Amino acid sequence: MCGIVGYIGYKKAVDVLQKGLKKLEYRGYDSAGISVIEEDNLKTVKTKGRLYDLTDILEKENFTSSIGIGHTRWATHGKPSDANSHPHQDCSNNISIVHNGIIENYQSLKAQLQEKGHTFNSETDTEVIAHLIEENYDGDILKTVINIQEKLEGSYALGVLHQKEPDKIVCTRKDSPLIVGVGENENVIASDIPAILDYTREAIILDDGETGLVKQDEVTIYDENAKEVTKETMEINWNTEEAEKGGYDHFMLKEIHEQPKAVKETVRGRVQKDSVDLEELSLTKEEISSFNKIDIVACGTAYHAGLIGKSLFESLARVPVEVSIASEFRYRDPLLSNNNLVIVISQSGETADTLAALRESQKRGAKVLAITNVVGSSVSREADEVIYTWAGPEIAVASTKAYVTQLVALSLLATYFAQTKKTITSERLDQLVTTINSLPEHVERIFEYEDEILDIAKKVSKYENAFFIGRSLDWAVAEEAALKLKEISYIHAEAYAAGELKHGTLALIVDNVPVISLATQPHVYEKTISNLQEVKARGAQCITVVNEDDTEINNESDQIIRIPNIDPLLSPILSVIPLQLLSYYAAVARGTDVDKPRNLAKSVTVE
Amino acid sequence: MCGIVGYIGYKKAVDVLQKGLKKLEYRGYDSAGISVIEEDNLKTVKTKGRLYDLTDILEKENFTSSIGIGHTRWATHGKPSDANSHPHQDCSNNISIVHNGIIENYQSLKAQLQEKGHTFNSETDTEVIAHLIEENYDGDILKTVINIQEKLEGSYALGVLHQKEPDKIVCTRKDSPLIVGVGENENVIASDIPAILDYTREAIILDDGETGLVKQDEVTIYDENAKEVTKETMEINWNTEEAEKGGYDHFMLKEIHEQPKAVKETVRGRVQKDSVDLEELSLTKEEISSFNKIDIVACGTAYHAGLIGKSLFESLARVPVEVSIASEFRYRDPLLSNNNLVIVISQSGETADTLAALRESQKRGAKVLAITNVVGSSVSREADEVIYTWAGPEIAVASTKAYVTQLVALSLLATYFAQTKKTITSERLDQLVTTINSLPEHVERIFEYEDEILDIAKKVSKYENAFFIGRSLDWAVAEEAALKLKEISYIHAEAYAAGELKHGTLALIVDNVPVISLATQPHVYEKTISNLQEVKARGAQCITVVNEDDTEINNESDQIIRIPNIDPLLSPILSVIPLQLLSYYAAVARGTDVDKPRNLAKSVTVE
Repeated sequence: MCGIVGYIGYKKAVDVLQKGLKKLEYRGYDSAGISVIEEDNLKTVKTKGRLYDLTDILEKENFTSSIGIGHTRWATHGKPSDANSHPHQDCSNNISIVHNGIIENYQSLKAQLQEKGHTFNSETDTEVIAHLIEENYDGDILKTVINIQEKLEGSYALGVLHQKEPDKIVCTRKDSPLIVGVGENENVIASDIPAILDYTREAIILDDGETGLVKQDEVTIYDENAKEVTKETMEINWNTEEAEKGGYDHFMLKEIHEQPKAVKETVRGRVQKDSVDLEELSLTKEEISSFNKIDIVACGTAYHAGLIGKSLFESLARVPVEVSIASEFRYRDPLLSNNNLVIVISQSGETADTLAALRESQKRGAKVLAITNVVGSSVSREADEVIYTWAGPEIAVASTKAYVTQLVALSLLATYFAQTKKTITSERLDQLVTTINSLPEHVERIFEYEDEILDIAKKVSKYENAFFIGRSLDWAVAEEAALKLKEISYIHAEAYAAGELKHGTLALIVDNVPVISLATQPHVYEKTISNLQEVKARGAQCITVVNEDDTEINNESDQIIRIPNIDPLLSPILSVIPLQLLSYYAAVARGTDVDKPRNLAKSVTVE
Repeated sequence: MCGIVGYIGYKKAVDVLQKGLKKLEYRGYDSAGISVIEEDNLKTVKTKGRLYDLTDILEKENFTSSIGIGHTRWATHGKPSDANSHPHQDCSNNISIVHNGIIENYQSLKAQLQEKGHTFNSETDTEVIAHLIEENYDGDILKTVINIQEKLEGSYALGVLHQKEPDKIVCTRKDSPLIVGVGENENVIASDIPAILDYTREAIILDDGETGLVKQDEVTIYDENAKEVTKETMEINWNTEEAEKGGYDHFMLKEIHEQPKAVKETVRGRVQKDSVDLEELSLTKEEISSFNKIDIVACGTAYHAGLIGKSLFESLARVPVEVSIASEFRYRDPLLSNNNLVIVISQSGETADTLAALRESQKRGAKVLAITNVVGSSVSREADEVIYTWAGPEIAVASTKAYVTQLVALSLLATYFAQTKKTITSERLDQLVTTINSLPEHVERIFEYEDEILDIAKKVSKYENAFFIGRSLDWAVAEEAALKLKEISYIHAEAYAAGELKHGTLALIVDNVPVISLATQPHVYEKTISNLQEVKARGAQCITVVNEDDTEINNESDQIIRIPNIDPLLSPILSVIPLQLLSYYAAVARGTDVDKPRNLAKSVTVE
């Protein structure tokens, strides 16, 4: 996820662009850049780092142009670097583009363009678009941008400048957001609303396949056949802060709601018709078969993702897995060899203990595969193999979409191992692939129950203690759900393997204590219900997460939360989401600072 | 889990039953009841509450019968109530039964019986058995009880009366313990040995599927096909006095103070001058070397002992260890082979989940070694190898001396493996043997600090939440210490790997919250102190367990608890003891029923 902005009007473009990018920093912040057409010359300034690094450079220039495009980056293809920053140009430096999204077929396009003599300056997928436009340019940048889109696979929002046509910005989109703010004698394009609010409250929301021609005093929208379409403008009522949060009260709620898209992005391009394809991995079939143990090492929420990973790998790929907390693993003299694969998981890729565990593992001869959300992070650079989660920047301290995409990445990886080792049948593989493909729509459906979850959360918010129980994969989800509740609502929540409650913690179950059970796993369903009855018999207020088709639960639980029925092995990807919402609404009811909870920081770079 | 007793002989049955139930109260005590056959009429008295509530009611009756059954309950299906108390009867009030266990298919059986016209008076799973017997009764209660068992799914120990056959008690079991005490012109059935000791020292231990026909002067055991089987009687050597409190206010405090003796007994005969000798093991040197993985499986406190075991085996014998909660292990399709050793740990040897894990492991080809405190327990009978902890009967629900002797047994075993595999030098072996021999006197010395611990406990008792942190072995002890505090004081205590706090739980650290740190492990000492400083900076009240020679701690912690310096690998055996005392005195300060905490039972023979 990146932030795009473009301006054409009467003000100094660099000022408008920088202000706009500042408002979009929540979309990415590892590099930034702008292009302007300064007296018929395309000028580009870009740099790795935060926006203030760009500002320092721009202060030395003195651009007066009132047309330009800008970008704040969240790396996907190519690590954060000056060269990989946007905007990107063609060979002749006539064209400059900013891009949000992923061009999936960029490698083949790049090869074709190189054969035709194009020279590339970056490792990005984006740069191919600039060269593709150059290759196809016929004197009309609008038509060219419309025409080349049939060659692009993947997702994109684009802002394009051509120095020979200095009175226009062309913009277009597919599966990535883009809006045009319509002002008085000035117009602004942007990935998102906050960037336009200082100039106008009138916006045109581009739909997939539409291309906008934006001039100082005119905005015209065209369809895929270059036919003009009539679009209504929308009146924006949000203030800037609301807009940064997409109209949500908090980043956390916004990020919870971004999960269908985050899951879709993480699956995209990795699933073929009947198989999983992780072409980013260089592991050979022999290597994958040679691992006789996998260690998953992580901290906090990522550690909880690892607990799910254990079940996935053991069940599908039949290889034993040990999940360790990174701060423990690194100091315990772990038994490792070159037949061990170590998987480290870190959203930021900078978690100090996880990074230390990675280094310790490599020193002991193990191969390390990283699952991370940040391209170019320390973990991604040092690991032998990397699988990225494409969740986009996560701003709220309490992780939601990063966790869910970690589960998706682990599911893909475990399926890939199973497929490679042939430890599952082709029918089972088919089922898994079908389920993985259907995840985004299933995730989306959970929000149908949001109002009910809000009501339950209000009740839970009145108590100072809460317990989460489950068996098997449900237990692992319970651990994450309890962490979520405690970190933002400050309710002392604790998770238990349901079968363990009676070995001690049952003593804490008194009248009305909320006990949230998960009962989504058929093979332990009856046992879980027995445990639920034990806490109910002690007066607990029972809230239970079950599959939609569950009828037995109606007599057993005070409150019921339902999730779509899917393959039980993958249902943690769904079952955690209502519990994220439960934590969120309980915290809101208690009036805590949800996005920045007491004592906690987003990325823990100390031990 | 419940306690069952039954009597047939020449004494007043109500007296024997009440005395027996008193001895079994540690198995459950939320309701109690008895049935007798009084002049050919079945009479039942039962009530929610403790045994003295039952006694109050019985005093008003004047039963003279010398045949009856009794029950002390720990609720599973249906909350504690008069109606849900045992014994349960059929519609005609001919049959009365007491049950320990869970009938998993009771809902479908109940529906079938209701269709046939049976009326139910309780919410229990148990009541279906009474009606099922009624439905199938053909004039022979013994045969009927044998026959109906094919319809029952789940676990059960049963005592059954029929008023038309007033000269017999029928009893049977599957996955729940049951013994028959064979006396002179009187016989007693019971869930456990203490209930029979006043009448006899000869016992028959029923095996799964066996049914006993108990008459005044005769006990006959039958198999599933109603064929008589020959059983040996076992001589019981336990002293009844051992089950008394010996001057302490509570069994728990008595048992904490019995630890020097319990440790001494557990070491006795197993340590030679310069080696460990476990002659009870039949494992060969080759077998010990052939294990490429050890799984430790247990529940509750025994699971926490397993966490220490992992470090011991990995560090000394260099074999990877996975520690699992039994209720999770048995349902997760564990990867096992005949190169796996599975170690199960259970004080009572009757823990249902642990027993099931044992059976599952054997089925998958693994060898099972049991660590248990009860000779003749199910676990001890079914395991391939047994190491007994010689802690003596543990009456307090909260385990203390059983846990510490489990640690001793694991230390002996890990050292024995290391010595056999030569993974440690003879100097290191010498050190370990010397340390193990010195354990009883070191344990004894901890009581010198008891008054100081009492003072700290009084302070802790004023709070509703507490946290225990540590790294490495200290973390494993923290888990046990937190469980101890929560189960008897009802303070919501939670343990954390010290390095994990900042990944979420730090949000719960506010002014004066007690944080008990353990910092006895030199290799992670400085890191632990850093974490201690983090919580101190948030206002926590810091209590720290350190080695006696620690001087650095004086500036860091509000309260300090010291333990004798010994080999760090064995220091958990010492460091847990002050924390047992802390829990005990905190619970006493809060006025809880220390030996019989709310909702908990001693030996969990249901899942």
